[in-house]
Amino acid sequence: MAGVADCPLCREDGGLLIARQAKFRIIRVQGQDGVDFPAFYRVVWSDHVAEWTDLVPADRSALMQAVAKVETEVRRCLQPTKVNLASLGNVVPHLHWHVVARYDWDSRYPAPLWAPVTRANDDARLAALREQLVACDAAIAALSF
Amino acid sequence: MAGVADCPLCREDGGLLIARQAKFRIIRVQGQDGVDFPAFYRVVWSDHVAEWTDLVPADRSALMQAVAKVETEVRRCLQPTKVNLASLGNVVPHLHWHVVARYDWDSRYPAPLWAPVTRANDDARLAALREQLVACDAAIAALSF
Repeated sequence: MAGVADCPLCREDGGLLIARQAKFRIIRVQGQDGVDFPAFYRVVWSDHVAEWTDLVPADRSALMQAVAKVETEVRRCLQPTKVNLASLGNVVPHLHWHVVARYDWDSRYPAPLWAPVTRANDDARLAALREQLVACDAAIAALSF
Repeated sequence: MAGVADCPLCREDGGLLIARQAKFRIIRVQGQDGVDFPAFYRVVWSDHVAEWTDLVPADRSALMQAVAKVETEVRRCLQPTKVNLASLGNVVPHLHWHVVARYDWDSRYPAPLWAPVTRANDDARLAALREQLVACDAAIAALSF
């Protein structure tokens, strides 16, 4: 499917590219979201479709198996308090799944990451987490799909 | 698996029960979230597990197929602007998937439903949506899994 001209996920990877397959790619989020939540990955479908159920069941399943593999590596490498998964796409209606490691010390926990800040960022813990990302990125990059 | 005493999703259905299977149930959310987002369903795993990847792959797939069926009926019956899917569980770490119909007129759109309110509820549109829920509930209740 051709890219859609005004779609940022058709134009660009949308973050730090960790792995690319024909049907999807895995990126790690940059910008302020990546500052507040360093271990914030996205599995982005290659074609421009809005809804998960726009995919045929085999593709839907392949995408979720990729999400599961990313979640598994995030848990193994980073021991989060909780993993948060979501496919929203209200702003960018190009199918992508968020896979986010949450910690009981992060700036919104236990609220959703999109809720207002409830405590200041813990810079020391965030720095320590960022150091662990190298190994997590490598583990995700080494996955076979 | 035995229920966990202090877990609200072990103790109660957690909303209006729409369908019950051995491994999961489907409820429609009540309370303020159900006022702001009337078409807010949850697929709740029966056993008390925290993470989606705590399930064996066959159960993980069965759960997502149920989520896909709920999403399909929500789209067919309610024509939302966008469907939002999420598994967070920071507050109640008992595996459940949110399936929420979002509309470009709702109180947070296009922000995530957990973001601060950006416009007042449109009571007329919410009332019209609530009327459509009867058919959507019935369609979900009639699904075979």
